[in-house]
Amino acid sequence: MLLYDTPLAPNPRRVRIFLAEKGVVIPTREVNLIALEHKRADFAAINPLQGVPALVLEDGAVLTESVAICRYIESLHPEPPLFGRDAREAAFVEMWQRRMEFQVFMPIAHAFRHSHPRMAVLEQPQIPQFAESQRARAVEALKWLDGELASRRHVAGEAFTIADITAFVALELAPRARVPVAPDLSHLARWRADVAARPSVPAAA
Amino acid sequence: MLLYDTPLAPNPRRVRIFLAEKGVVIPTREVNLIALEHKRADFAAINPLQGVPALVLEDGAVLTESVAICRYIESLHPEPPLFGRDAREAAFVEMWQRRMEFQVFMPIAHAFRHSHPRMAVLEQPQIPQFAESQRARAVEALKWLDGELASRRHVAGEAFTIADITAFVALELAPRARVPVAPDLSHLARWRADVAARPSVPAAA
Repeated sequence: MLLYDTPLAPNPRRVRIFLAEKGVVIPTREVNLIALEHKRADFAAINPLQGVPALVLEDGAVLTESVAICRYIESLHPEPPLFGRDAREAAFVEMWQRRMEFQVFMPIAHAFRHSHPRMAVLEQPQIPQFAESQRARAVEALKWLDGELASRRHVAGEAFTIADITAFVALELAPRARVPVAPDLSHLARWRADVAARPSVPAAA
Repeated sequence: MLLYDTPLAPNPRRVRIFLAEKGVVIPTREVNLIALEHKRADFAAINPLQGVPALVLEDGAVLTESVAICRYIESLHPEPPLFGRDAREAAFVEMWQRRMEFQVFMPIAHAFRHSHPRMAVLEQPQIPQFAESQRARAVEALKWLDGELASRRHVAGEAFTIADITAFVALELAPRARVPVAPDLSHLARWRADVAARPSVPAAA
C-alpha cells in the first residue's frame, strides 16, 4: 500500500494519528499542496477530486476519504478498536465522529477556508461574512462539546476513538481559522491536554 | 425502538428509504419542523442538537446522525447489504457515500439553506453569495458524477448502496435549491430513473 499524504492539512493528519494509534506503518508519498501538486494531472489520475489523503491498495485501487481509509485500516488491524467494539458501540462512535465533523470540524474549516489569505487560491470566492457566521457557530459548538466532556473522558465515551481524532484535529486548526477557544471551557481543555499527551499525536505531527 | 421522523427534510428520508430497502418497520413519531417542534425543550431532551432523525433504542439511548442510524440498522438486518459485503467493499461504499455527501449533497443543501425563503428562520444569516457559489459547485459535481455513472450501474459499483440513497435524496432537493440538473447528463438521468423506480422510494416519500 502507498499513502499519499501532506503535512499541512487536517484530514491527512487524522489518518496519521489513526495509524500511529494502531502502530501501523504505511509507506507515504508527499503531495505538496503549496505547490498545488494536488491539482496536477498526475495526481488527478490518482484522485480526480484532488484530495489528500489517498490510499493506493495492493491491486492499484485508490481509496480516498479519511474516515473510509481509517475504517479500512481498522478492518485489517482491529486492535485497539477506534470505531467501537461491537455494532452498538460502532453506531454511537459513528454518531459522535459525525457530530465532531459537522458541528466542530466543518465550521472551523469553513472559517479557515473563507478567511485565511493562504486559502484565497483554493477557496474561490472567499466570503468573509460566511467565515464570520461559521466562526460564531464553532464557538457555540465548542461550548456544547465542553458540556458533553464534563461527564466522560472522551468524546464518544471512556475509550479514545476516531471521534476524538476528528475533534482534536479540528481544534488544532482553530487558531488559523481565528476561532477562539475560550479558556474557561475546562472540560474541553482537560480532554485536549489528555489527547495531546498521547504518543500518536507528536508521532503524527 | 422509536424513530423521530419528519416528512420534509432530506436526512430523515435517507433513513426511510434505507428501512424500506431492508423491509424493516420501526414505529415513528413526527416532528413538525415548520412549527419548530425540533427547537422545543421536549425534543432537545431527545436530541440536544435539534436534528431529525433520532432513533430511540430499547434502553432509551438516543442514536442520531442518519448514516449512524442506517449502519446500526444494517447490523441488525444485514440483508440486503447496503454498506458493502466485506471490509474492502465497505471501504469503497463509505468513500462513495462520503463523496456524495460532501461533493453533491452538501453544496445543494447549502444552496437551499442560504437562499430559500422558508430557510430564513433556520439559517441565520442567509448569505446569497454563498448560495450562489455552492450552486456552481453542485453543477460541477453533477457533471463529474455523470461521468462516473457512465461506467457502472450505481454510485459505488453494480450494487445499490447507501451512497445511492444520499445522492438521490440530494438530487430531490435540487429544485428547491435552484440547482439546475442539466438534461444532457444522460448517465445521471438513467441512474436517477433507475433509483426512482425502486419500490423503496415511493414507500419512503
